[in-house]
Amino acid sequence: MTDRVTVYEVGPRDGLQNEQAILPTDVKLGFIERLVDAGYRHIEVSSFVRPRWIPQLADAAEVVRRLPQGADVTFWALVPNRVGLERALDAGLGAVATFMSVSETHNKKNVNRTVAESRIALAEVVANATAEGLQVRSYLSTVFGCPYEGAVDEARAVELALAFLDAGAQQISLGDTIGVANPGQVRRVLEAMEAGGVPLSRIALHMHDTRGTALANVLAGYQAGVRTFDASAAGLGGCPYAPGASGNLASEDLLYMLDGMGVDTGVDLNTACEAGAWIADALDRQLPGRVHRAFLAERSRETARSA
Amino acid sequence: MTDRVTVYEVGPRDGLQNEQAILPTDVKLGFIERLVDAGYRHIEVSSFVRPRWIPQLADAAEVVRRLPQGADVTFWALVPNRVGLERALDAGLGAVATFMSVSETHNKKNVNRTVAESRIALAEVVANATAEGLQVRSYLSTVFGCPYEGAVDEARAVELALAFLDAGAQQISLGDTIGVANPGQVRRVLEAMEAGGVPLSRIALHMHDTRGTALANVLAGYQAGVRTFDASAAGLGGCPYAPGASGNLASEDLLYMLDGMGVDTGVDLNTACEAGAWIADALDRQLPGRVHRAFLAERSRETARSA
Repeated sequence: MTDRVTVYEVGPRDGLQNEQAILPTDVKLGFIERLVDAGYRHIEVSSFVRPRWIPQLADAAEVVRRLPQGADVTFWALVPNRVGLERALDAGLGAVATFMSVSETHNKKNVNRTVAESRIALAEVVANATAEGLQVRSYLSTVFGCPYEGAVDEARAVELALAFLDAGAQQISLGDTIGVANPGQVRRVLEAMEAGGVPLSRIALHMHDTRGTALANVLAGYQAGVRTFDASAAGLGGCPYAPGASGNLASEDLLYMLDGMGVDTGVDLNTACEAGAWIADALDRQLPGRVHRAFLAERSRETARSA
Repeated sequence: MTDRVTVYEVGPRDGLQNEQAILPTDVKLGFIERLVDAGYRHIEVSSFVRPRWIPQLADAAEVVRRLPQGADVTFWALVPNRVGLERALDAGLGAVATFMSVSETHNKKNVNRTVAESRIALAEVVANATAEGLQVRSYLSTVFGCPYEGAVDEARAVELALAFLDAGAQQISLGDTIGVANPGQVRRVLEAMEAGGVPLSRIALHMHDTRGTALANVLAGYQAGVRTFDASAAGLGGCPYAPGASGNLASEDLLYMLDGMGVDTGVDLNTACEAGAWIADALDRQLPGRVHRAFLAERSRETARSA
């Protein structure tokens, strides 16, 4: 079992999609370039949902067309359906991610389809994307709990994971959408995945830090054998001013823990912190990442000393 | 190995000592009563340091004299030296905690003594307290890293832990004072403790969440066999407005994770959340605990629905 971990950086998509501000395309590309410089090799850059759903990411096609060339990086975008896939293909993207929730109510409220409808439609998107030679990952949301239904049977996630792997997806990202998971549950869900025939090498964990448990859940996943974890620069997408807001695990927090454990991520923590500081500056707001904040505090102390 | 965990609640001392506001004694006692109601059985209520060092806790003797009677709770206070121990004995307290740092520079800056001087003086305090029939715990700070010296050899903590156990302390609380620990390091420190002759049953972990790693570190400690963890209601003592401020692990976050893992703490999470909300209200400021914030957000949604 390798000690190497892949950090799948979702800041430009999952982060910015949840920010109030709509950033200019140039700023997004500046952010993405800094993430590339930090060493991230999987970056989710935008979403091909209808622009009026998520105006923050309406420039998806332009972002994709202007992505940094030459770096050995896989750039990803969300595609909600066949139309989104076509737009991603038109833009020249090489890797796409589908998304749905495993709980009925959340899926209905989020994409206005039943779980069965989403499964059928997205399996076709996955198959088409694979046929076009794209890399595909499939997000499953509310795996660890639903804001409307509460506890969620892990069998639901196992069944959908198998369906998307069968359709051709290379990776399944299991989302703790509302940040309710605990390490024991992570272990149980992963055991159910393995028992159901989903290899852990095909699983990513997408944990939220709403209740402070994200890194403990990552640790449990790592101990079980998962080697891909999603995170967002500086915790982008979580709002420190909204009490209890669901927040993405901050990439720097994840990198800090893994570095300390001697796990190779290929990402330079300091450069990653610079990227996080840069986007916080561009948004002109305080972001929730803990290492991010410690980094800013240290930097301002250094500035004070050298002044 | 039991699944039962003791949460040692430090909010009224370690939390309030780091707040700017000086609360009236009645408010402190109201807070403590609520913590007792939640089911905490070890609560650190104040500190017998010189009042001019920590004016927030200048009323230590009055707090101790007016503590709730009859509950099966051990109330603790810090004692910095022989004089502090005498004040604690005068006030009628049954359990005291000594404190020192394992790194020279931090200890010198914090208590103006060398490590050797603190060790000798505090071993005597521990021995005297034990002779008086008190329960004694000894805090070791900067075990996992020092803000001035960086990495700290775990042998320093092992040696001091043994010294205080020899002097009569029942428990050694290992502090990640600046929140730099990682799960691998927690395991290494605990292995060094065991190898050095310090039983894990005598160890508590006092983790800070400065870099988001507190619960991951608790998980590593739990897996290794530690069954006592320090935490502070609502993360009291950490300041969300000061970027990078060292912050205590929030008790509710700890309880949430342990509850989810099926670990019995004897504390009711909801009542603990009420206590945290109550002290946040008394301080009139936003506290950093994640579950605390989720609790407040849920409560305001419920209020909105019922309005």
